[in-house]
Amino acid sequence: MNLKKEQDESQDIKAMQIKDINTSIRKANLKGVINKIVQTGGPTIFSISDGTGNITIKDFVKPGQRAYPEIDEGSFVTALIKVGSYKGVLEGEIRSIEILNEQEKDLLKQEIKRLEIDGIKVKDIGFLVDNRILDKLKNRFILAAQQIKLAIVQERPIIVRHHNDCDGYSAGFALEQSIVPLIVKQHHTPKAQWEFFLRAPCQAPYYEIDDSIRDTSNSLRNAAKFSNRMPLIIIADNGSCEADLMAIKQARIHNIEFIVVDHHGFDKDVISQEVLTHINPFLVGENGSAMSAGMLCVELARYINNDVKNMSHIAAMSGYADRIDLTDERVVLNYLSMAEKEGDNRELLSDIGLVIEYVSSKVRFMEVREYIEVLFGEPRDKQTKLVSLMAPYIRDLDRKGLAIGKAGAIQEKFGNLVLQTIEIDKFFPGFGFFPKPGRAVGLIHDNYVLETSETALITVGIMNTAVTIRATTAANFSIHSLKVFLMEQLPDSFVEGGGHKNAGALNFIPCMKNDVVRLLKEFITQKNKR
Amino acid sequence: MNLKKEQDESQDIKAMQIKDINTSIRKANLKGVINKIVQTGGPTIFSISDGTGNITIKDFVKPGQRAYPEIDEGSFVTALIKVGSYKGVLEGEIRSIEILNEQEKDLLKQEIKRLEIDGIKVKDIGFLVDNRILDKLKNRFILAAQQIKLAIVQERPIIVRHHNDCDGYSAGFALEQSIVPLIVKQHHTPKAQWEFFLRAPCQAPYYEIDDSIRDTSNSLRNAAKFSNRMPLIIIADNGSCEADLMAIKQARIHNIEFIVVDHHGFDKDVISQEVLTHINPFLVGENGSAMSAGMLCVELARYINNDVKNMSHIAAMSGYADRIDLTDERVVLNYLSMAEKEGDNRELLSDIGLVIEYVSSKVRFMEVREYIEVLFGEPRDKQTKLVSLMAPYIRDLDRKGLAIGKAGAIQEKFGNLVLQTIEIDKFFPGFGFFPKPGRAVGLIHDNYVLETSETALITVGIMNTAVTIRATTAANFSIHSLKVFLMEQLPDSFVEGGGHKNAGALNFIPCMKNDVVRLLKEFITQKNKR
Amino acid sequence: MNLKKEQDESQDIKAMQIKDINTSIRKANLKGVINKIVQTGGPTIFSISDGTGNITIKDFVKPGQRAYPEIDEGSFVTALIKVGSYKGVLEGEIRSIEILNEQEKDLLKQEIKRLEIDGIKVKDIGFLVDNRILDKLKNRFILAAQQIKLAIVQERPIIVRHHNDCDGYSAGFALEQSIVPLIVKQHHTPKAQWEFFLRAPCQAPYYEIDDSIRDTSNSLRNAAKFSNRMPLIIIADNGSCEADLMAIKQARIHNIEFIVVDHHGFDKDVISQEVLTHINPFLVGENGSAMSAGMLCVELARYINNDVKNMSHIAAMSGYADRIDLTDERVVLNYLSMAEKEGDNRELLSDIGLVIEYVSSKVRFMEVREYIEVLFGEPRDKQTKLVSLMAPYIRDLDRKGLAIGKAGAIQEKFGNLVLQTIEIDKFFPGFGFFPKPGRAVGLIHDNYVLETSETALITVGIMNTAVTIRATTAANFSIHSLKVFLMEQLPDSFVEGGGHKNAGALNFIPCMKNDVVRLLKEFITQKNKR
Repeated sequence: MNLKKEQDESQDIKAMQIKDINTSIRKANLKGVINKIVQTGGPTIFSISDGTGNITIKDFVKPGQRAYPEIDEGSFVTALIKVGSYKGVLEGEIRSIEILNEQEKDLLKQEIKRLEIDGIKVKDIGFLVDNRILDKLKNRFILAAQQIKLAIVQERPIIVRHHNDCDGYSAGFALEQSIVPLIVKQHHTPKAQWEFFLRAPCQAPYYEIDDSIRDTSNSLRNAAKFSNRMPLIIIADNGSCEADLMAIKQARIHNIEFIVVDHHGFDKDVISQEVLTHINPFLVGENGSAMSAGMLCVELARYINNDVKNMSHIAAMSGYADRIDLTDERVVLNYLSMAEKEGDNRELLSDIGLVIEYVSSKVRFMEVREYIEVLFGEPRDKQTKLVSLMAPYIRDLDRKGLAIGKAGAIQEKFGNLVLQTIEIDKFFPGFGFFPKPGRAVGLIHDNYVLETSETALITVGIMNTAVTIRATTAANFSIHSLKVFLMEQLPDSFVEGGGHKNAGALNFIPCMKNDVVRLLKEFITQKNKR
Repeated sequence: MNLKKEQDESQDIKAMQIKDINTSIRKANLKGVINKIVQTGGPTIFSISDGTGNITIKDFVKPGQRAYPEIDEGSFVTALIKVGSYKGVLEGEIRSIEILNEQEKDLLKQEIKRLEIDGIKVKDIGFLVDNRILDKLKNRFILAAQQIKLAIVQERPIIVRHHNDCDGYSAGFALEQSIVPLIVKQHHTPKAQWEFFLRAPCQAPYYEIDDSIRDTSNSLRNAAKFSNRMPLIIIADNGSCEADLMAIKQARIHNIEFIVVDHHGFDKDVISQEVLTHINPFLVGENGSAMSAGMLCVELARYINNDVKNMSHIAAMSGYADRIDLTDERVVLNYLSMAEKEGDNRELLSDIGLVIEYVSSKVRFMEVREYIEVLFGEPRDKQTKLVSLMAPYIRDLDRKGLAIGKAGAIQEKFGNLVLQTIEIDKFFPGFGFFPKPGRAVGLIHDNYVLETSETALITVGIMNTAVTIRATTAANFSIHSLKVFLMEQLPDSFVEGGGHKNAGALNFIPCMKNDVVRLLKEFITQKNKR
Repeated sequence: MNLKKEQDESQDIKAMQIKDINTSIRKANLKGVINKIVQTGGPTIFSISDGTGNITIKDFVKPGQRAYPEIDEGSFVTALIKVGSYKGVLEGEIRSIEILNEQEKDLLKQEIKRLEIDGIKVKDIGFLVDNRILDKLKNRFILAAQQIKLAIVQERPIIVRHHNDCDGYSAGFALEQSIVPLIVKQHHTPKAQWEFFLRAPCQAPYYEIDDSIRDTSNSLRNAAKFSNRMPLIIIADNGSCEADLMAIKQARIHNIEFIVVDHHGFDKDVISQEVLTHINPFLVGENGSAMSAGMLCVELARYINNDVKNMSHIAAMSGYADRIDLTDERVVLNYLSMAEKEGDNRELLSDIGLVIEYVSSKVRFMEVREYIEVLFGEPRDKQTKLVSLMAPYIRDLDRKGLAIGKAGAIQEKFGNLVLQTIEIDKFFPGFGFFPKPGRAVGLIHDNYVLETSETALITVGIMNTAVTIRATTAANFSIHSLKVFLMEQLPDSFVEGGGHKNAGALNFIPCMKNDVVRLLKEFITQKNKR
C-alpha cells in the first residue's frame, strides 16, 4: 500500500455504471439487481448487474454467516463499494447496501430492460447468399439471435449439442465461433469460454434422453456449486424429430431452454411448442435437402455476432458433406465461390470433411474444442498439415473398407432393379473399425454405381438387429414404406427407425433378421410389379 | 485498512477455542494437535484442531522451505496467530508456535478426546416404526452413527457405495441427507459437501474389486495432492456377501475403513470381522426380506443426524421396490402412513421408484447427486413434474419389453409346474435397451401369473453365459439347489452366482449353455417327482 | 502491514537472478525472456525466465486490457519488480519493464543458453550392469536424458505413454520416479507433479491414433487455458513399429515431440526420423529379447536423475515378466542380485508382477499414479500387504482360467509337432474376465508343456476375428511366415497383425475364421514335410 493509493481513498464517491468500473476507481455507487448470492465459509458474495455489466460484491459478518439476509436474489439495491480485485477479476467490498424503494426499483427495472434490449438488439445484416429458404426463415433467425444474446447478457451458460457428422460439426463450430467471443466479453475473462460454453456431439442421430439427463445433471451441479443459471441448449443438425421430444421435455422441467436448428424431416412437428425458436426449412414449406444445418448455423452465427469472419467455407463444406448440391447446386456453389476467395477449394473442403468424419468417430462424445478448431482452420497452417497427413490415410482405410465390402456383397436382379446386400457382422471386424457400417454401406453403394453405371440400385447392410439402407433416386425406394410394410407383415419384429427417402436404417429384434430380409425382397418384388 | 482495524491490533491476545474464532478477533492463542501439514511453493500450511473445530495456520520462511521442521503431523502445540481470511475461509498467520511439554500435551489430549466424544455422542431417539428387527440391531445403529460422526469430526471423507436399484438409491440418499449437512457444518463451507462426500452406485450387485481399486486410487490421489485422510466407506444394500470380501480387504490395506448396511443373505458371515460395524437382519437371526436397506438406512440416518426430515417416504418406497410387503406388510404400511401425512401416496411412490430404476440404468456409475435429489423430492414441485413426465414413458418402454418377451417366451408343463423360458439374446436388442434382461424377465414372469393365474411358475431368461431366474413361492424352487446340482452334474460349466430363493442369476461358460438348459429341465423334473 | 515491512521498501533495488528471489527481498531487478503471457480479466500476467528459474510478474491497466502490448512471447526484457506472493507462490508486481537493446539481448541469450546447457548437462554415471546392448546405446541414453531435462527446464509438460503390461508399467514407473522430483524442483511447488506430468498406459499394444488425438486435444486445451507449452511424449515399451507412425506424425503437427524407448522388433525403422531420440536394441544390431523396456528405462532414469534410488528391482521384475532370462539369464540375475540386497527376491518380484498384470487389466487407461506407486513399493509395507493379499487371489483366477482352457483345448498331432487349439468365444465368459484371452492361451500353453513335457507345441486361441498364438522354440514356428502364407492363400481374409517369433496375434474378417484355421493347419502340415 503506497501513499498515492491512500490519497485515492479520499476521492469523491461516484455514481456510476458497472461497465465503467476499473481499478483506477477507488469507490463507487451502484444501482442494480442481485442475480446470484453465494454463502462461502467466509463472506457472503453477491453478484449485481445493472444492464451494462456485472460485478461481484461481498461482505463478511463472521465465518459462514449470511450478510444482509434481507437481500434476496432478485432484489433491486443501491450499494456503495470499495473497488478491488481478486484473482485478477474486479470486485467490490460492500460499504453499504440498501434495497431500493418501489419507485426507484421501477425506474431501474425499466432502465435495465432498456439496456438489455439494446444489448440483444439484432442487426438485420442479410444473408451471405440469395436464397428463398433463408428469406422465409429470417424472422426465426432474428428471434433466435436475440434469445442467444439475451442468454449471454443474463450470464446463462450455453450448450451446443450437434449431430455427430461433418454437417453437425460445421453447425456446432459456426455457433461456437460467434458465441464464445461474446461470452468472453460479457464476463471480462477468457476463462469464461470454458465455464459458460460447451459444444459436444450427440452420440445417437437425435438428442436422446441420456444426453438430456447428463446435461441436466451437470447443470444442476454447477447451479448448486457455483450458483450458475440453468443453460440454454442449442440443438444443431438434430432436434426436429419425435425422437428428440422426451429429452427436451425432461430438461425443460429443470428450467433448461432450447433452440433447435435442423434440416431433417419429421412426420409431425411436435418440437416447436417446446422450444424458444425452431429453425427448419420444412417448417416453412421447404425441403431440408436443399439446405444443410451447417449453412443455417453459419447464417445464424452472423446474426448473433456481426464480427464473425471466415464462415463461408464452413457452409460450403457442410453443403457437400450432406450432398445439398444434389438438390440445389447453386447455393453450395455460391458459398464455395466465397470460400475460394479465402483460399479454400472444393478438394480441400472435401478432404477436411473426410478428416472430420474420421476424427468424430474417434473422439466420440468428447468436446476436444481446440482440436476441432485446428480442423476448421484455426490456425490455417496446422489445418493444412493435418489434412495433408490424415486425408490420404483415411482414404486408405476407406479403400480397405470398400474392398472388404466388395468381397462380401451379393447382387440380385429384381426386374430393372439391383438389390445389393452385405452381412456386416460376417465381413466387418466390429467395434472400433473405420469405416463404420453406415459409411461402409455408402461406399459400397456408390462404388457399384460407379463401376457398373447401374442407375436403379438399393444397397442394404444387414446386421443382427438392424439394416442400413442406401438407394439411388432411380430405384424409387422409400424406407418409410418399407417400415410400414414390415410393421404390417411382421408386427413381432418391433421395427423402429427411418431416415430420408434414399438413406436410413431400421431396427428390429434379433430373431427376426431372416424374416426382415425375406420381406425386404418381397417388398421390392411387389413394388417392381406395380 | 481503516483506523478501527488498526486499533484492534492493540487488543490483548486471547486464549481461545477454535470454534470461537472469527474475523472480529485480531490475534488469538490456540492449543491443539497438528493433523495435516502441506508444503506449498510458498508458505508451510498447518491444519490445527482442538476438538472444537479446525483452522489452517501458516508461516513462510522462503519459497518451498519447510517452516518449523520440528513440528510433525500429530504434534501437540500452542500457537499465537494473527487471524485473517483467504478465499473467504478463516486462517491464521503464525506469530509463534511451540510444542507442548508432556504434561500439557496429556491434558490437551484428554480435553480433545472429551470434546470429540461429546461431538460423536449419539442420542437414542428411537425408530420411526415399532419393529423387532430394528430393536435387535439398535446397538449396531448407535455404534455406526458414532463412527460416522467421528469420521466427520476427524475430517475423513465419506464415500457411500450402494446397490444400483431403487432400494440401493433410497439407502444411499437417506445417508447423504443426514451426513452432508454435518460435513458442511464441520468445514464451515458449502464446498465441503463435494470435497468430503461422494455417493455412487456399484455397477455389479456387490462391491467389486474394480470399485475398490478406483475408490482407493482416488483417495490416495487426494491424500497426496490435498493431504486428505483416507475415507470411511459405507456400503449400503450390498456388502454382506463373500463376493464383497476381497474388495473390502484390498481397500483396508490403504487405511480405508468400512461400515456395511445390507439386508441380503450370505452363506457365512466373513464380513463382520473386516468392518467397523455390520448391520444386517441375518446377523441377529432375522430375515432380510422383512426389511429393506432403504429402511435400515433411513433409521440410521436419523441416528446420525437428529434433524433430518421427510424420511418415511424413502423407507416406504424402498419397501415396495424390494417387495418387503410380501413378507411384512405391516412395517411398509407404517412407513407409508407417515409418508402419506407428508403428501405422498403409494401410487406416487411406485412411480418415483420406477423413474429411479430407469434413471439408474442411464446414469450408471455417475453420481449425478443433484439430479437424484430432484427424484427424491428436493424440490418437490420438480419431482412431481418429472415423475408425471417420465413414469408413463417408462411404462411404455416396459410394455414394449413385455410384448417382445411374450413373443419369445415358451411355456412347458412339468407336472404341476410351468417352466417359461426366453432366449434373451434372440429377442432383445442388447446394450442400452430398457428394460434390461433381469427386469424384462421379471415383467414376463409377473404378467404370466396375472394372465393365467398360474401359481407354480418358474421363468428363465437364457443368455449366452448366464440364466436369470424368477420363481413363484408356490413353485418351491431354489436357485441355490440348482447351482449345487449343476456343479455336480456339469463341473466343466464353471457355474457361479446365486440370489434369493425366488430370484437370482447363474453364470457359466458359453459352450455349456445347452447343457445348462437341459439340466435345468432335468432338475425340475426330478424335483417334481419327489 | 507493520513498520518493519514499510522500512524494507526503502532498501536498494538489487539486480539478481530469479533463483535467488525470495520474500525477504522486497524489490528486484531482473533480466530475462518472456515465455508466456496470459491476459486475465484483470492484470496481464507475464512469465519470465533467465535460465536460473522462472517467475510470474504482472501489471494491471484496466480490467482485461493488455499491459505493455509492445512485449511479446519471446521478448528479452529488463524489469523492476516488487516481490510478493499469490496463493503461496512467489510473484512480482511490475514497477517498470523495458525491451533490451540488441546487444544486451544477445548477451542475455548467450547467458541463458549457457545456463540451460548447464541445467541439462548429463553426467555419464555408467550402467547398473555390464552389458553390450546398453554400451552400444549409451549415446542415445545421454541424448534422451538431455532432451528430457531440457523439457523440464523449459517447463514443457511430459507425458509418458507405456505398454499396458508389467514391463510397460515398469518402464513408465522408472521414468516417473526420475522425472517427477525434477519437475517439482523446477516449479517450486509439489502441485506441479500433476500439472506437468502424466503417465498412462496405451490400450492397444502400440501408440494408436486414438491416444494421439486424445493427448493432442488435452494439450491444446491446456495451452489455450493455461498457456502451457505442448508436451514431450516419451513412449515406453511401445513406439518402434509401423503401427505407431501415424499417431506420432499426427501429434507432431501440433508441436508435440517424442522420445521412444522400446525393445520390440520392426520390419523397417520408420520411427527414428520422426522422434528426438529412438532407443531400441534392434537399432544397434542387437536383439530386443535380451533386454526389457523396464531395464532400458531404469538405466535412462538414472541418467536423467542421478539421485534416483531403488531401481534394480524394477529392472529385474520387468526382465522376468518379459522372459528376458530365456535369452540372457545373466543380465536379469545381475539386476536381481542388486534387488536382493534391497530386500526383494525373485518370488516376491514375480508376485508383484502378477499383481501389476491384474491391476492393469482393471484400471485400463486410468493413471492411478499413487496406487501404482504402492504396487512398486512406495511405501514398502503397504506393497507387501497388498501383494500378500492379491497374489494368491489372482493365482486362483489364473487356475480357473486354466481349468476352463483345459476343458476346451483340443490337441492334434502334426508329425513331431502338437497343435493345441481352443475356441475362446465358446469357452471364456468374455468382457471383464481375467485372465484375458492372450494370457489364458499362455497359461494353457505353458501348462501343456509342463504336464506332457512336449517340446514342439503350438497353442492357438481362436476368436471371431483373431487368433492369438504361442509356440515353443522347438516348434520352430513363425507367425510372420504364417501371415505371409495367409495373405497369399486368402487375400480376402484381410489378415493383419504379427508379433514375436513365438508369440503374437493375427486379425482377419469374421467370415474367414474357418478358412484361416484350415490354412493354419495346412501351413503346419507343409512346414512339417520340409
